[in-house]
Amino acid sequence: MDKGKASKALRALLESYASLNHPPTYIEYLDDPPTPLEFHQIVSRNRPVIIRNAMNDWPAYTTNKWTPGYLSSKMGEMEVMVAETPKGNADSIVLHEGTKYFVQPHTASHPFSTFLTTLKSSTSNPSPSTVLYAQSQDSNLTSEYLPLSEDIPETIPWASISFSQPFPDATNIWIGNHHSVSSLHKDPYQNLYGVILGTKVFYLVSPLGVVGVKERKVRSATYVKTGEGFDIVPDPVSSSSINKEGEGEEGEEGMITWPSISLDEYFSLPESERSIPVEDVPDTDPWKWTKLSTPIKVEVKAGEMLYLPALWYHQVAQTVDEVEEVCVAVNYWYDMDFSGPFVSMVNYVRDMTELTMSS
Amino acid sequence: MDKGKASKALRALLESYASLNHPPTYIEYLDDPPTPLEFHQIVSRNRPVIIRNAMNDWPAYTTNKWTPGYLSSKMGEMEVMVAETPKGNADSIVLHEGTKYFVQPHTASHPFSTFLTTLKSSTSNPSPSTVLYAQSQDSNLTSEYLPLSEDIPETIPWASISFSQPFPDATNIWIGNHHSVSSLHKDPYQNLYGVILGTKVFYLVSPLGVVGVKERKVRSATYVKTGEGFDIVPDPVSSSSINKEGEGEEGEEGMITWPSISLDEYFSLPESERSIPVEDVPDTDPWKWTKLSTPIKVEVKAGEMLYLPALWYHQVAQTVDEVEEVCVAVNYWYDMDFSGPFVSMVNYVRDMTELTMSS
Repeated sequence: MDKGKASKALRALLESYASLNHPPTYIEYLDDPPTPLEFHQIVSRNRPVIIRNAMNDWPAYTTNKWTPGYLSSKMGEMEVMVAETPKGNADSIVLHEGTKYFVQPHTASHPFSTFLTTLKSSTSNPSPSTVLYAQSQDSNLTSEYLPLSEDIPETIPWASISFSQPFPDATNIWIGNHHSVSSLHKDPYQNLYGVILGTKVFYLVSPLGVVGVKERKVRSATYVKTGEGFDIVPDPVSSSSINKEGEGEEGEEGMITWPSISLDEYFSLPESERSIPVEDVPDTDPWKWTKLSTPIKVEVKAGEMLYLPALWYHQVAQTVDEVEEVCVAVNYWYDMDFSGPFVSMVNYVRDMTELTMSS
Repeated sequence: MDKGKASKALRALLESYASLNHPPTYIEYLDDPPTPLEFHQIVSRNRPVIIRNAMNDWPAYTTNKWTPGYLSSKMGEMEVMVAETPKGNADSIVLHEGTKYFVQPHTASHPFSTFLTTLKSSTSNPSPSTVLYAQSQDSNLTSEYLPLSEDIPETIPWASISFSQPFPDATNIWIGNHHSVSSLHKDPYQNLYGVILGTKVFYLVSPLGVVGVKERKVRSATYVKTGEGFDIVPDPVSSSSINKEGEGEEGEEGMITWPSISLDEYFSLPESERSIPVEDVPDTDPWKWTKLSTPIKVEVKAGEMLYLPALWYHQVAQTVDEVEEVCVAVNYWYDMDFSGPFVSMVNYVRDMTELTMSS
């Protein structure tokens, strides 16, 4: 097959998507929660939306505002799992002794009040030796944070009706500060993400833009706390799964395929340089395919809820509430619908992108 | 690029789609019209559905039943456009003097009663010299058949609400008999197709199955009635658009890309031979890719309505009502939503299918 033609078709896919969803970096804001039908129309377009006034009846956002003081009064010394990293980089690719690893955080159990005090005090520290982030994405609001669950609804009614799912698959609380960033990744869930304190900054790339996030297969590893700081310990890999080029096979143990770029770097380009490249520009711009994937940057402020469609790549930074010195958010994961053509087509675009871009 | 790998990825697309929509030849029946939200859930899965009891309040189906007698009493001698072909093959590929042409029907205006009498009398004729089909798909129920429009609703309420479109883009009546077949093709419309008299037999292939319908670029032509029967007259092609291999460019005048297979032939295979081929079968089965595209055959009986999702390939045969000797149907075309990822991805699958299958 003619590789130039395959590359041209991939480019046509991205340009067509950008022109049919114009402007491609546009985020719609709803001033009120949608009806179930309106929400389903949004969901079936697989486009992110910010919804205002969706949390007006949440005690967590109104009467029992989730300030650190309130949270500590409810949770007290209950143990919670906390991710600990040297630079706030849980689940991200790190260059270590000349090799790139996908590094998961060190996790440790802390009494909630102790965690929160340490977290708050680290907010004004420009370079804390350990960055803490409560992000145990295991439906923690129905388990370790159960006392807080009475302050939020069990489900988002318009989403529940729209998805025909009485309850979400998981409900999570996220407590951190600006030192933590979630690296670019995707989840097979429909995500409703409401911010209670501070601001979350989402960098987004549509599932079609897989070429722009430059997925690479790397060994997985885990941060381990040592006396002096952190060590990176590679996860075991069965020897049979590493061939002589050191590359593993898809899905095998100890290896993971993960986006290799940081959209921080992309968004540090001046806005004028983020435009879609014109066809006849020499093919030397390392950001060419990322530009064609039209990443979106959006701030989700306290009181706003982001609908993040399933399979969208997202990188998430945060800024703290100026008074409370932490960022607190809640998200609801609903199962995505794997039927229809979407999932198969996304996987096909991914397969063909890999074939087209491999040399 | 490795063509074998591209072919494998295309196969994986079709197998994934078949496994996520299981069984892939399944058609859902609804016993009652869906709510707008339920319909939107179906639409966003881009899967065909048959809806029963959707026409219970249509005079055309109940009180003012559209029998030939009633239709003639309403339409009288009003002129209507009728497609005329030698074999009921309007808009299909025909081999003529060693060349394949996409042949459009001869069209002629007839007084309605005359047309209907001729059509009915041809039903019992095993090989009429001219096959008539009233199929002027130009929203004929709001133009030449206007007197009949009071017997059907202006819009399908649950579809209108679901699509956020007060009215359809077009509403058509179709009057024919078993001599006419619409060849495999697709439309960029959401289609609701209700049968009043007789049965329509739809052969369906999803937009992802483009590889199975074997699109070919051919010259377009038109049937012209002569003293003895029909001649095929090629449409004019500007000489600049034919290169030295006789192949034209996409979208140019006088050329058209159209599915080259007939699903009649496919469905004449025994059911056991229509199953998805196993991976290691020698690659000599000419139906291999069609099988992987899992065509669906469904009969839409009088009183039933088919939701035919936008961009699905469909070939349509018909059988007449045994008493009335004609087949009468009505369809509503609603605009499809071009936003979101679907259209761009369908076009990408089409582009890559062409690259993968070209030798």
